[in-house]
Amino acid sequence: MSSYFSHIAPIRYQGPGSDEALAFRHYDKDRIVLGKRMEEHLRFAVCYWHSFCWTGLDPFGSGTFERPWFQGGALMELAEIKAQAAFDFFSRLGTPYYCFHDRDVAPEGSTPRESHEHLARMVDVLGEHQQRTGVKLLWGTANLFSHRRFMAGAASNPDPEIFAMAALQVRDAMDATMRLGGENYVLWGGREGYETLLNTDVDQELDQLGRFLSMVVDYKHRKGFKGTILLEPKPREPSKHQYDFDSATVYGFLTRYGLEKEVKVNIEANHATLSGHSFEHEIAVAASMGILGSIDMNRGDPQLGWDTDQFPNNVPEMALALYHILQAGGLGSGGLNFDAKVRRQSLDAEDLFHGHIGGMDVCAKALLVAEQMIQDGRLAEALKQRYAGWSTPEGRDILEGRRTLEQLADQVLSRNADVAPRSGRQEYLENLVNRFCAA
Amino acid sequence: MSSYFSHIAPIRYQGPGSDEALAFRHYDKDRIVLGKRMEEHLRFAVCYWHSFCWTGLDPFGSGTFERPWFQGGALMELAEIKAQAAFDFFSRLGTPYYCFHDRDVAPEGSTPRESHEHLARMVDVLGEHQQRTGVKLLWGTANLFSHRRFMAGAASNPDPEIFAMAALQVRDAMDATMRLGGENYVLWGGREGYETLLNTDVDQELDQLGRFLSMVVDYKHRKGFKGTILLEPKPREPSKHQYDFDSATVYGFLTRYGLEKEVKVNIEANHATLSGHSFEHEIAVAASMGILGSIDMNRGDPQLGWDTDQFPNNVPEMALALYHILQAGGLGSGGLNFDAKVRRQSLDAEDLFHGHIGGMDVCAKALLVAEQMIQDGRLAEALKQRYAGWSTPEGRDILEGRRTLEQLADQVLSRNADVAPRSGRQEYLENLVNRFCAA
Amino acid sequence: MSSYFSHIAPIRYQGPGSDEALAFRHYDKDRIVLGKRMEEHLRFAVCYWHSFCWTGLDPFGSGTFERPWFQGGALMELAEIKAQAAFDFFSRLGTPYYCFHDRDVAPEGSTPRESHEHLARMVDVLGEHQQRTGVKLLWGTANLFSHRRFMAGAASNPDPEIFAMAALQVRDAMDATMRLGGENYVLWGGREGYETLLNTDVDQELDQLGRFLSMVVDYKHRKGFKGTILLEPKPREPSKHQYDFDSATVYGFLTRYGLEKEVKVNIEANHATLSGHSFEHEIAVAASMGILGSIDMNRGDPQLGWDTDQFPNNVPEMALALYHILQAGGLGSGGLNFDAKVRRQSLDAEDLFHGHIGGMDVCAKALLVAEQMIQDGRLAEALKQRYAGWSTPEGRDILEGRRTLEQLADQVLSRNADVAPRSGRQEYLENLVNRFCAA
Amino acid sequence: MSSYFSHIAPIRYQGPGSDEALAFRHYDKDRIVLGKRMEEHLRFAVCYWHSFCWTGLDPFGSGTFERPWFQGGALMELAEIKAQAAFDFFSRLGTPYYCFHDRDVAPEGSTPRESHEHLARMVDVLGEHQQRTGVKLLWGTANLFSHRRFMAGAASNPDPEIFAMAALQVRDAMDATMRLGGENYVLWGGREGYETLLNTDVDQELDQLGRFLSMVVDYKHRKGFKGTILLEPKPREPSKHQYDFDSATVYGFLTRYGLEKEVKVNIEANHATLSGHSFEHEIAVAASMGILGSIDMNRGDPQLGWDTDQFPNNVPEMALALYHILQAGGLGSGGLNFDAKVRRQSLDAEDLFHGHIGGMDVCAKALLVAEQMIQDGRLAEALKQRYAGWSTPEGRDILEGRRTLEQLADQVLSRNADVAPRSGRQEYLENLVNRFCAA
Ligand SMILES: [Co+2]
Ligand SMILES: [Co+2]
Ligand SMILES: [Co+2]
Ligand SMILES: [Co+2]
Ligand SMILES: [Co+2]
Ligand SMILES: [Co+2]
Ligand SMILES: [Co+2]
Ligand SMILES: [Co+2]
Repeated sequence: MSSYFSHIAPIRYQGPGSDEALAFRHYDKDRIVLGKRMEEHLRFAVCYWHSFCWTGLDPFGSGTFERPWFQGGALMELAEIKAQAAFDFFSRLGTPYYCFHDRDVAPEGSTPRESHEHLARMVDVLGEHQQRTGVKLLWGTANLFSHRRFMAGAASNPDPEIFAMAALQVRDAMDATMRLGGENYVLWGGREGYETLLNTDVDQELDQLGRFLSMVVDYKHRKGFKGTILLEPKPREPSKHQYDFDSATVYGFLTRYGLEKEVKVNIEANHATLSGHSFEHEIAVAASMGILGSIDMNRGDPQLGWDTDQFPNNVPEMALALYHILQAGGLGSGGLNFDAKVRRQSLDAEDLFHGHIGGMDVCAKALLVAEQMIQDGRLAEALKQRYAGWSTPEGRDILEGRRTLEQLADQVLSRNADVAPRSGRQEYLENLVNRFCAA
Repeated sequence: MSSYFSHIAPIRYQGPGSDEALAFRHYDKDRIVLGKRMEEHLRFAVCYWHSFCWTGLDPFGSGTFERPWFQGGALMELAEIKAQAAFDFFSRLGTPYYCFHDRDVAPEGSTPRESHEHLARMVDVLGEHQQRTGVKLLWGTANLFSHRRFMAGAASNPDPEIFAMAALQVRDAMDATMRLGGENYVLWGGREGYETLLNTDVDQELDQLGRFLSMVVDYKHRKGFKGTILLEPKPREPSKHQYDFDSATVYGFLTRYGLEKEVKVNIEANHATLSGHSFEHEIAVAASMGILGSIDMNRGDPQLGWDTDQFPNNVPEMALALYHILQAGGLGSGGLNFDAKVRRQSLDAEDLFHGHIGGMDVCAKALLVAEQMIQDGRLAEALKQRYAGWSTPEGRDILEGRRTLEQLADQVLSRNADVAPRSGRQEYLENLVNRFCAA
Repeated sequence: MSSYFSHIAPIRYQGPGSDEALAFRHYDKDRIVLGKRMEEHLRFAVCYWHSFCWTGLDPFGSGTFERPWFQGGALMELAEIKAQAAFDFFSRLGTPYYCFHDRDVAPEGSTPRESHEHLARMVDVLGEHQQRTGVKLLWGTANLFSHRRFMAGAASNPDPEIFAMAALQVRDAMDATMRLGGENYVLWGGREGYETLLNTDVDQELDQLGRFLSMVVDYKHRKGFKGTILLEPKPREPSKHQYDFDSATVYGFLTRYGLEKEVKVNIEANHATLSGHSFEHEIAVAASMGILGSIDMNRGDPQLGWDTDQFPNNVPEMALALYHILQAGGLGSGGLNFDAKVRRQSLDAEDLFHGHIGGMDVCAKALLVAEQMIQDGRLAEALKQRYAGWSTPEGRDILEGRRTLEQLADQVLSRNADVAPRSGRQEYLENLVNRFCAA
Repeated sequence: MSSYFSHIAPIRYQGPGSDEALAFRHYDKDRIVLGKRMEEHLRFAVCYWHSFCWTGLDPFGSGTFERPWFQGGALMELAEIKAQAAFDFFSRLGTPYYCFHDRDVAPEGSTPRESHEHLARMVDVLGEHQQRTGVKLLWGTANLFSHRRFMAGAASNPDPEIFAMAALQVRDAMDATMRLGGENYVLWGGREGYETLLNTDVDQELDQLGRFLSMVVDYKHRKGFKGTILLEPKPREPSKHQYDFDSATVYGFLTRYGLEKEVKVNIEANHATLSGHSFEHEIAVAASMGILGSIDMNRGDPQLGWDTDQFPNNVPEMALALYHILQAGGLGSGGLNFDAKVRRQSLDAEDLFHGHIGGMDVCAKALLVAEQMIQDGRLAEALKQRYAGWSTPEGRDILEGRRTLEQLADQVLSRNADVAPRSGRQEYLENLVNRFCAA
């Protein structure tokens, strides 16, 4: 029986005035926000990999964390100790969901069959923990990037035998997800990209990726899986050029292979900013394209050029993100996964709680701010008025294709008058947002 | 009669050994490269705006160039002086093409009709200069970003009357392009983007952009224009979020509005690197999607976060770009436009020549390097061998959809053996490229 | 009599609950914070250039603002209209200070003498406005970067005659600052940098800069000016390599020329982030080096690679900055200058108020958060405990130079035991900050 | 006896026309360049860590390289096998130097004393290999960043006992360097920086760093070491804020602690570009400050925000770097260390050779280009003429302090004439460089 977290009492809501570090000040899961419980809006998930598999290793140094399951021992026994600690953590924290990669929960074996069997056995273990604790699976995924065989890609590998190895892992990870009642299945193309065009046939590799994803979608339908298939865009890391750069790139890829009705995106805040966009830009663009699926809610560092995967800690920024998620109608079967890790110097068991409590509280407070922005209505009204011209009969005629270029041109020539621009009122609108953030 | 450049003799090819600054050392236009004249491969164009309209102004200071056509006078007279100087420059330099925006060649009038008439008169002037000098128009375009009326976008403007103003300009610029025998028509969405989501409806604006582009395509067909319609992607500047971020984003946009067979991209090297890609990545991706149209051949500065629009000056980098253009089958009706400006401290008439001569020589030398890379064949052969597995019957069965996920998974399980990765040989291939660059 | 702002009533404090856009919700100037009035802590200044001289022009388009003083007319008359409007704005807004460049307030003349006289006359005008309104001058400065003569630098110019032109402007601007009771004098090296080493002698130019600054310091002392001389660091813009890259670079420069006791830095938040640092890093580093002087309080955009000069709008970020300023003992004769501009689409007179009101309220709220951080004391206590080992006798012996490398090495060998690291507790501390931000 | 590289014949110079991949085309070590042998100019070193210790691990995946010394076994035996392979590689490649960290060559022991003894034993082994092969040590250094005890810094650690652990390692690494005839000693502050100001006292940590470096310098003098002590600047990685950000920052740090005559910098090309500078900027600035010591000759990727440590492969860029090194009088006891690694997909023994051969050839060709630039003289002459005004009597009077601010100001007023700027001729000069690059 794991006692790694047993000195920490379950985390409870104590309100904004609380002075207790191991308590929620804003996350009050049953509070009704815009007609739904806070927990149902936020659908928080803890990720297995960062909190239970990462050792604190970085490119310049070895692991710093001394968890019991990182000590020596038989691999499957360590996997069971880790699983017990993980569910103990989820329960004490009170998140409704978790997420995992196949290799997070079950060690790579010495043969494909052994890996397959490791996973199958661990799915039983996870299932029992889910049953016991009530914690559910937001999504499963397969790790197709850590093993050296995938160094040149999984589905985009120059070698079709490695493509097939990837197919095995994904089939098994989808089966695991289905058995555990997972609500989505995610593909992050960790090595689906390239280092140099000198050894890469982009056209060939994109076709491979399109084929692989089509196979995944076909399998989903054959098995009757009702969850959503999600691609997670990310630029630049680990391959210099990642194929799934951002949401707009993924949309183009999906349309190219006829999959835009089948697959959505899992947007990570840190990946958004790495690709040169704001987080809310990625949300709005994906929503506009009809592919907004789920969220990885972890921030990056604006001065660093890589994925730092930190917990969100800025309420005004998260309030805008949640406002746009709410305006897009929410996330459906998706949720907010903390694809975040405590800093490598945060050695203690308590630090895992501080990271998650801080992240959950920031999102909860941001949700309350977004609620006020919506209830107040001035932001939405300002937008409506700005585009009012497009709701006039002439505006609709243009937008719906009943005007040609030369008709419009000739109209302007005959009217022969300039049109004055109107203020965009950005500072006014930013102040309005702050009114709700710093009430 | 302009005498601004008359002290400079026409630029001639003198060979690599020449010590003359105002001569070509590599650009030998009639030299046959891979079966075509160098001039036909490179199809160089000078841009009107940077070399004849930009005053040297930047965000921190006023103009530095003292051209005759920047001195006081009647606007249309200055436009004629400028046109004469421009064609004098093109002729002395020996580029076959030029490019322009409507407002580069003809001043904005005080009413729409006056602007329309200014352009019409200047098209006559340009036509005479083309006739006289033999210089041709690679593409025309409309400036929909400098005037304050377009501060919130042209086609994506919240006000449909400004959309109509843009339609007039584009109709007129397309007409001008057709009258002048232009081989393409370009749209760069200078203000088609947004500053803040607080005042922006992305979904609405994308629909407006789709509509506008459809109107342009319809007009092209109605008028029987045979040139290519090109979108020029650019991230981040001048709007914080530009809709046409990069080639992959444009491809997704085109498919969304059913235009992917109608419109190609004009890729600018500097825009490529600003969007977080290498220049050759943008070329390869556009080629793979079937939308590679034309090139703006100007470099950025790797340490600066904006478009510096400098002339290319690095042969190894340009050799890779040209290699990929050649591998993609060339540019068709496109060409290499120098969307480049001499530095603001480069005050003299000679400096305009040095910039263009340097750029042309770098491209010419790069073409010769690319020719060697192709004739040598080792790069292409290495690529072919790397993907050889996909040409086997099993590889083809997978790629062409004759295998399911579970079939591949079960095959791997029954074979039950790992697959060893093979070296990507990046350093070997990079050295091979350098063999041709620094011969 | 200016009526540009006369439709806007003076801005007053109405408290957090106010629903009025043209009022302060947090800036309550007489509220006592840590023993001083809020106004005395914050010492806000409005900058003349962005709000009264910038036309909305950017590299891709012409001006968008239609202020009365941008219309045609005699230059000196327009300068007077502008000054009246500016002081009207300062008064209605209620900031205690303003800042200006010589060329902001008085137009460049056709000769050096005429420019000199323009400034002298406008100093009289400004002095009367100061007298009338009670608004004071935080600092003056000279614009040595906009005119084409300075394109290759002012003090770092290859031509000593241009160095002398700069000396004239700075002498006159210092005189103006003194006459107007300015509390500091700022030098921002707008063109003190270079584009390419090919035409630049860095060593020579640094010596020129050192000489110029020494002359400025000597002049200050000869004139008995009691204010602080400030350098404003900035990387990358407008020259590719700016000599005053960041505070640490400026410190090294000052020590090289023996000026580190004479000159401090004016840190701009946007310049800090452009140089790859956080804003509070620049504050802490300058404080550690004893050169923290004053602040330009304007934010950048984390996805853009240039100086966007936006008003601050993020309370948690500003709270950290103000916390570090307070921990460093405050700014002395410095203040918080909004070197910020409303967006180019923010056309209306009201928008100037919204920008400044938002910025002032964000800083005021941030000051209240910082006050709580200090009164609570847990942040400071955690820091003290972390470094407690350095206050032991052994710690002091090491730090004060009473131990050699080999003594420490031999001690470790004889103790022969490893030392366990302790948690850095970053997430706990970040949550503690948020406790005060989102109370 | 190592046979890992025994299938590869020693690499020889074969000239530019050679078609052999495992040969030099430009590096002809005895060729005389500007009066010195090429080998004496370039002083190439191979680094131990990237080529013999790095397993191919990255943040997203485990090792990819299967070297014999990465297989299981006793640590000291593996260290000896690795050393034998390393010297076999150095010899076959023909570089005159290598560099190492203590922990590269000798494994961390279970106690401080055991680590100390491991190093002592391996120094004997390395000494024998040096003796046998003639390969020399360019510099040694200590790894104070990989072990978890250093996660919060070594000399800048909050715990003085960890400072003392660092002292032991540096004392031992300096002793090892001296015993092996090393020509310099390097300190790279891998964890000398911080993640968040919330847990960091910058002022305290800088004092600790100053103290540590003073102890190192004192020890050097007590031991009579004649080599140079070098600091290697790097921004941002692995700590978010590294104290030794760039050369200018290091210079300021050295002056603050009175060490600017004692310590120089080891400039890494990749670190230069990460800090927002060009490589040649760092060289020129360090030369101007008198602290240019040695070079790490590895490139980064302009689109990636971290240290990719790739071999140089662009002749025009390296030619500028070498030109500025030569203009600064060369590197003295320093050299060109390839702090570079083959890509993680470059699995084969041959790939290690391709990486180094390519890098050496690029530098050799670049040296030949720089030689031409110097012999031609036009670049130097253009620079001299640009600054000619500063050599006039008046120019010297200003620069040497014989003019006051007001004297210059009054002179300008009485002359009362503007000064015209002259062209910076950047494009002309860039073309001139290319004349030698693509001859
Ligand atoms: Co993620
Ligand atoms: Co991430
Ligand atoms: Co451009
Ligand atoms: Co362009
Ligand atoms: Co600024
Ligand atoms: Co500023
Ligand atoms: Co290095
Ligand atoms: Co490095």
